[in-house]
Amino acid sequence: MAGPDSLRWRPRAAGRQDWASWPHYDAAGNGFPGYWYPVTWGSHIDGTPRAFTICGERLVLLRDGGKVYALHDRCPHRGVPLSEGDQQFPGTISCPYHGWTYRLSDGKLCAVITDGPDSPICGKVTVRTYPVAERLGLVWVYVPIADERPHPIDEQLPEELVGNRFVVGGRIEPRRGNWRFACENGFDEGHAKYLHRTSLWRLFKPMPTWNVTSVIGDGRWIYRVQDEVHWEADFPGVGRWSNQRWWKRRPPKETFNIGNTGKPKKIDPTIAAQEFAGFASLSMPGVLRIVYPKFIHYEFYVPVDQGEHRYVGLMVNFTAGWKALGFYLKYLGGVRWLFHGQFSGQDAWMVEVTDAPPERLYRPDVSLTAWRNLAEREFTAKLEVHGCASS
Amino acid sequence: MAGPDSLRWRPRAAGRQDWASWPHYDAAGNGFPGYWYPVTWGSHIDGTPRAFTICGERLVLLRDGGKVYALHDRCPHRGVPLSEGDQQFPGTISCPYHGWTYRLSDGKLCAVITDGPDSPICGKVTVRTYPVAERLGLVWVYVPIADERPHPIDEQLPEELVGNRFVVGGRIEPRRGNWRFACENGFDEGHAKYLHRTSLWRLFKPMPTWNVTSVIGDGRWIYRVQDEVHWEADFPGVGRWSNQRWWKRRPPKETFNIGNTGKPKKIDPTIAAQEFAGFASLSMPGVLRIVYPKFIHYEFYVPVDQGEHRYVGLMVNFTAGWKALGFYLKYLGGVRWLFHGQFSGQDAWMVEVTDAPPERLYRPDVSLTAWRNLAEREFTAKLEVHGCASS
Amino acid sequence: MAGPDSLRWRPRAAGRQDWASWPHYDAAGNGFPGYWYPVTWGSHIDGTPRAFTICGERLVLLRDGGKVYALHDRCPHRGVPLSEGDQQFPGTISCPYHGWTYRLSDGKLCAVITDGPDSPICGKVTVRTYPVAERLGLVWVYVPIADERPHPIDEQLPEELVGNRFVVGGRIEPRRGNWRFACENGFDEGHAKYLHRTSLWRLFKPMPTWNVTSVIGDGRWIYRVQDEVHWEADFPGVGRWSNQRWWKRRPPKETFNIGNTGKPKKIDPTIAAQEFAGFASLSMPGVLRIVYPKFIHYEFYVPVDQGEHRYVGLMVNFTAGWKALGFYLKYLGGVRWLFHGQFSGQDAWMVEVTDAPPERLYRPDVSLTAWRNLAEREFTAKLEVHGCASS
Repeated sequence: MAGPDSLRWRPRAAGRQDWASWPHYDAAGNGFPGYWYPVTWGSHIDGTPRAFTICGERLVLLRDGGKVYALHDRCPHRGVPLSEGDQQFPGTISCPYHGWTYRLSDGKLCAVITDGPDSPICGKVTVRTYPVAERLGLVWVYVPIADERPHPIDEQLPEELVGNRFVVGGRIEPRRGNWRFACENGFDEGHAKYLHRTSLWRLFKPMPTWNVTSVIGDGRWIYRVQDEVHWEADFPGVGRWSNQRWWKRRPPKETFNIGNTGKPKKIDPTIAAQEFAGFASLSMPGVLRIVYPKFIHYEFYVPVDQGEHRYVGLMVNFTAGWKALGFYLKYLGGVRWLFHGQFSGQDAWMVEVTDAPPERLYRPDVSLTAWRNLAEREFTAKLEVHGCASS
Repeated sequence: MAGPDSLRWRPRAAGRQDWASWPHYDAAGNGFPGYWYPVTWGSHIDGTPRAFTICGERLVLLRDGGKVYALHDRCPHRGVPLSEGDQQFPGTISCPYHGWTYRLSDGKLCAVITDGPDSPICGKVTVRTYPVAERLGLVWVYVPIADERPHPIDEQLPEELVGNRFVVGGRIEPRRGNWRFACENGFDEGHAKYLHRTSLWRLFKPMPTWNVTSVIGDGRWIYRVQDEVHWEADFPGVGRWSNQRWWKRRPPKETFNIGNTGKPKKIDPTIAAQEFAGFASLSMPGVLRIVYPKFIHYEFYVPVDQGEHRYVGLMVNFTAGWKALGFYLKYLGGVRWLFHGQFSGQDAWMVEVTDAPPERLYRPDVSLTAWRNLAEREFTAKLEVHGCASS
Repeated sequence: MAGPDSLRWRPRAAGRQDWASWPHYDAAGNGFPGYWYPVTWGSHIDGTPRAFTICGERLVLLRDGGKVYALHDRCPHRGVPLSEGDQQFPGTISCPYHGWTYRLSDGKLCAVITDGPDSPICGKVTVRTYPVAERLGLVWVYVPIADERPHPIDEQLPEELVGNRFVVGGRIEPRRGNWRFACENGFDEGHAKYLHRTSLWRLFKPMPTWNVTSVIGDGRWIYRVQDEVHWEADFPGVGRWSNQRWWKRRPPKETFNIGNTGKPKKIDPTIAAQEFAGFASLSMPGVLRIVYPKFIHYEFYVPVDQGEHRYVGLMVNFTAGWKALGFYLKYLGGVRWLFHGQFSGQDAWMVEVTDAPPERLYRPDVSLTAWRNLAEREFTAKLEVHGCASS
């Protein structure tokens, strides 16, 4: 990688307006295959099959012998969802209609209860299986491109979440609106100060009126940095506007270069993270990371279908032992309701009513275009690895 | 205009059956542009933006400095409805997402709160605005053909509603069914005596069994007149039928030419209107006028989209001062519930279940075909003024 | 007819997979015209018009002078459903909108109340009528191919239901899912032992694990017979499975040829039917007959549209007089709730979630393919009688 500026998107008067500039992104209404996606809490998956849709694929998940399995949720016999069935034998799942029984490990039809041990169809039918992993208390499923094998999930997780000790609090919610709107909203620099000005989470925190933002690429992440921060503004012929209120803390004096404008440092959870305060970064396939002084907040925008996604919001504290108790008290006593609740609910509201394209982008939307470039570039490279034409 | 008979539609055995005979009318499922439409009560519009759909166009209405404004209800940035936002500055409306702020008077983007006073996109984006007027206690919006300027609303209002003193009581309801079915139902001579025979509004009033009806054109209005009125009938091989009941008043003796069969007189609200009793007239873009002895009743069928319309029913009394109190007592004590409620609700029921074309018209449907002719002729003329091909 | 084996379908490893093998069946999502269909209980039809959809046709049914009539539920004038109207004259039905009045016997427009006795359209408009019969306490409607005349209903009813005395208990339910899935489920040999293992109706009855099934054709019926019955099975590498429980009766010892493998005998309700116990047969247009020792159970799968059907389940006891009382006690005290309720509800559940084609058939699906062959052959022959090309 060259100097950071070679991968730096500077704000422009108006970004590209045409989604056709990002053809794979434009086509990814159901999400990008070739990635791991968090589906639900591991504690929600037991021996009872449960149905989920991820990236437009209908999945049935269940736990057997401590391990979670994911299969295509459709019996090839007559199209009945396997999630309506149950387990008749260890290591299998049976369709409720005729007892067609599939091996969880490879999806092979291994017994047909109503056709006897010599059933000639046995072994000749297979239900697609999906790689499953458990990390951070979540069940993750890999949605492959064609029949590829998955990359290790640890290569996809945010680096600091591998090999460190931490505690997690979080929320998973089905939400309306396409996953791309949710992801663009999460990394969007523009709306935070305005949309969220009424959130209790920000009740005492000073909020700027407007910023000048750049986006810096570093490996698989892009980082949003503030070149300028303005706490109030006078709009000619319109009026003065500010988020300052008598009950809020005073903002800092500096208005230029208060953010990290150089190459972002590697996040080291073993040291206090103050210097990254408010530092937002994003990676494929839609993972947002916001570094607060004492937590890191993550959002995963999990594609369901064109009109729905799953919001997975995690607050992570790199601590352990008795200190974890303090974190849980803080999370359940406030963060969950104020941040993962009301604050994030304002985002959910906008994601639901966003309706693009067409769109008219403005300077802060450099965060959107940088993200779309990242997604387009990464997915094109992934397809080339698989020997597919890039579109 | 020649003698009245030159513009007189006489009943035929069966009217034209093919909506393709009226191509603009056939295409006007979302209504005709080029007219003023009443949207809601003026008292319902204040500083809080409210969303309406009229003629298939999504509108946001709000009041600022006493004046009502109407804008296209979509922020061009990311498609968020402006009606979800609010006012941050006098004379403007701001999108809730990023604070894009539009001038109410011309729809120009005049400030972008989250991009600072030097935002380069400022002034380069415009949201469509719609002319607004207030009359009769209602907010009216003009839906233009392309970018034309509106004609004065007073030229479109029923003549007697301009320059006279009167009091108004009314109801506005969203209703299912296309606006054309509502309008055709309103002017339809055929159904009134049959469908409404069970309405309390007509409990003591004698109702004919069948009539012979003509329609007379006079300027922009068409008038429905009765050539014959029959209080009962004997249907060969089927049976006798009459609306007469022992508790109803006796009908008049005459059965021929009791209506106004000549050129209708100009409605003069300063004299008693008895001579026009039951006189129904209709004008574009769907305005029904029924002259009762002591009131005039109006219905406006406001197009929303293919499957929905707004019913605006007004009862107008040409009085003022302390006599207005008597009118309001009468309206709120009865008319509102019996006439604008149950009676009109029977119409709403039929409008919802009407399903045409195909259709088979009969003699009384001369009122439908005359109206379709009027609409077709007026709209064609309007297009020619604008230099458009007539279809 | 040759020896029974000439019309015997033996189980195959896998049946035909492509619905295009049965083109008329594939196209019959709305059902097959040219048959009588039970619509509702005769006691539910009185002088108030009621709307039903059968084979995609909207019908209005009402009773006049003791006789039930069925007409197309749409007034040709303006498309209003006649089922919203009522009777103004004996032997007629009137549209609620303008009083267009149709003769029940032939659908002719015989009076137009609001257009007087000389209405020129009278006699020139006709609403389609459908043949109606009452049998077994049910109202049956014939849905014709084009304008053909119906065959006698008694030729279509199961033979034993014509000319014998019996009592009937039953249930009619609107159900989700296409009628073909319901019919295939009813005759399907495979699912009964597995899906219904948890039904109270089978609480004490031994249920096999798997069978070898053949299907025998005899005239217009096909019969399902068991060549082998297996009460438990050991699936290699998977496990042992049985429906036997300590509280259930012991199964019989024989495992081969316990069913009726020869030509099925004619069902004679005057003798005890034990020898046919569990004997399932099926005929067009979707009539299932299950012969129990003391009852015969029938299911009629009445097509509504692509996504819905009506389930008509009847329990018939060939008895009369005071013995009928015992039957009703038994039916209302148990059969209705356990068999026509919970047991049949399990079928409804599967029919709703079945999603085919595509499908992968297995040996017991010989019952499905035999039925599709029967339907295809009968309907093709019916079309040839009417001089239509066979597809």
